[in-house]
Amino acid sequence: MQTGFPLPPGSIIGIFGSGQLGRMLALAAARLGLKTHIFAPTGGDSPAAQVAHSYMQADYNDLNAVKAFADGCDVLTYEFENIPAETALEAARLKPLYPSASCLNVAQDRLTEKKFISEKAGVPVAPFETVENIFDLKRALRRLGGSGVLKTRRFGYDGKGQAILQNETDIENAWEALGAHPVIVEAFIPFIREVSIVCARGVDGRMTAYPLVENVHKNHILHTSTAPAPRDLGHAKTLAQSIMEALDYVGVMATEFFELEDGSLLVNEIAPRVHNSGHWTQDAGCTDQFEQHIRAVAGWPLGSTDPKHGVVMTNLIGEDVNDWQNLAREDNTFLHIYGKKEARAGRKMAHVNRVVP
Amino acid sequence: MQTGFPLPPGSIIGIFGSGQLGRMLALAAARLGLKTHIFAPTGGDSPAAQVAHSYMQADYNDLNAVKAFADGCDVLTYEFENIPAETALEAARLKPLYPSASCLNVAQDRLTEKKFISEKAGVPVAPFETVENIFDLKRALRRLGGSGVLKTRRFGYDGKGQAILQNETDIENAWEALGAHPVIVEAFIPFIREVSIVCARGVDGRMTAYPLVENVHKNHILHTSTAPAPRDLGHAKTLAQSIMEALDYVGVMATEFFELEDGSLLVNEIAPRVHNSGHWTQDAGCTDQFEQHIRAVAGWPLGSTDPKHGVVMTNLIGEDVNDWQNLAREDNTFLHIYGKKEARAGRKMAHVNRVVP
Repeated sequence: MQTGFPLPPGSIIGIFGSGQLGRMLALAAARLGLKTHIFAPTGGDSPAAQVAHSYMQADYNDLNAVKAFADGCDVLTYEFENIPAETALEAARLKPLYPSASCLNVAQDRLTEKKFISEKAGVPVAPFETVENIFDLKRALRRLGGSGVLKTRRFGYDGKGQAILQNETDIENAWEALGAHPVIVEAFIPFIREVSIVCARGVDGRMTAYPLVENVHKNHILHTSTAPAPRDLGHAKTLAQSIMEALDYVGVMATEFFELEDGSLLVNEIAPRVHNSGHWTQDAGCTDQFEQHIRAVAGWPLGSTDPKHGVVMTNLIGEDVNDWQNLAREDNTFLHIYGKKEARAGRKMAHVNRVVP
Repeated sequence: MQTGFPLPPGSIIGIFGSGQLGRMLALAAARLGLKTHIFAPTGGDSPAAQVAHSYMQADYNDLNAVKAFADGCDVLTYEFENIPAETALEAARLKPLYPSASCLNVAQDRLTEKKFISEKAGVPVAPFETVENIFDLKRALRRLGGSGVLKTRRFGYDGKGQAILQNETDIENAWEALGAHPVIVEAFIPFIREVSIVCARGVDGRMTAYPLVENVHKNHILHTSTAPAPRDLGHAKTLAQSIMEALDYVGVMATEFFELEDGSLLVNEIAPRVHNSGHWTQDAGCTDQFEQHIRAVAGWPLGSTDPKHGVVMTNLIGEDVNDWQNLAREDNTFLHIYGKKEARAGRKMAHVNRVVP
């Protein structure tokens, strides 16, 4: 094991989580001669463990395993934000953890996140209120203009843990489905586009930003990201980087925005990790988001983020992946398949990056 | 295990050899959701085994191990041409081996190779003669114009197993060093450039070609490849693909040429595998040679080979790799580090691809 930043080739980067993001991080690390060690409750046939140098199969709550894992790594990171706070704290006691446990803490909880972004970073978010019961919810909705979105504070992704509230029936159903969890209600934002930006911040505080990307969702799951977004508003970068400064962030972070009619941006949420809306960077002719994250957490200089051409990323969800033969035949199309066995509905199986010369 | 071509994602590609070429093949396969299984006498910390899905540590002559390995794979290939003929034949009895054992047989021996290229494929090579003893050698040299290069028929690479013959002393020394092996003597070619071309041929016989590349060697080891070569002669592709047709080749093959003053080309040698002079394709905005080889042997359609811009590849030999921090700071420069521990003199440790927009 090596010590001291930047970590030299041969050093071991520990990654919590073994999904496709971990897989692509491991592949990027390997390009740089860095090794990856995966921690996840899933086994060796999970996407990241298949390609990593080694893996440890254990529950995230098994702090002894976390300790043994951290002992064997030079730096620690994660591919998803739902690892328990205790696990992150224990890991960070033993080895540098990037992004830090406090970044994770902020991003794990919608309430903490929105308060941090608006109050600490001074960046606008959609109006929101916490609600404890259905009466609170009805009162809050009236204040927010009559409609809104109920969201669980934790563990939401791909539209899970969310419900749109437009009438009395919606409210009853949503509360029945989600009211047992801590929730917040957000104003319904009449946005014209969803855009996001992927930025990185190094251990030395230097920052980079990829161009703004326009995202289209289908069934609440990201369908396409078009890079660069047809209209780059410029201030997305400033807003995202203000949040990263306030968090003393290290690594790649994605910031999702609602763009309003007047061109203003409200932060929807942040992801303290590499992000699906940054997959286009793999085939854009610049350092990709996975290598950038590895560079950041290993204390390396950040790479260049200027794409050489446009890219449209399309997710292959569930059985979409069965079209791989046709996609492999397309010119200027790059396939990335995640090594998952079952093409279940709603499951992210692969993506394609189509170059737009 | 899967059967039938094209091999679907999740299939297992067996690779003989665990160096950097195997490593980059394994990383490319992983992008496509294909698994790799490595066979090599070196252990799990060798470059390819570090990133492959699994590996088997055994001697190439251990045919029982070869059999067990082949049983666990859907298709077989190799990253270097010096696996024993018996091993290749045994492997090919059990699973498709691409390129075939007969391609390997041709490429393993300079004499067989030169005869095949000139007689079967009708492609010009440097004049050569076989020699059995020092008297043969002296006579042959006179016929070849007084100077030449003595080369062992087998196991030569990076200038090893070669000696330049310009005078009587050279001849004595060369024979002493190499005469115990089967050797040939080649005419000394007054070439103006060394160029090479990487082509691929699919199981369906379709072929692709990357642009011609100009190579500069330093101490007999490839130093830089400039892609595309400043002057593409056009006929390199035709010559290389004639050889591939004659071999009924499947996979990526590199063909190295001497370019003469008058623009004509003589084949120096072929490499029945991905090749150092094709590393630039990794950062050229097209399908790279590693993915192309994987596509070919897995029966996938071949990818596009049109680079979006120029690339200069530079090898980092031995302690050159210690410059990684400065290289990581360069814009438009992509680092590929092979995961080798000791930076011994003459050892290929890494390469950089510098994009030339």
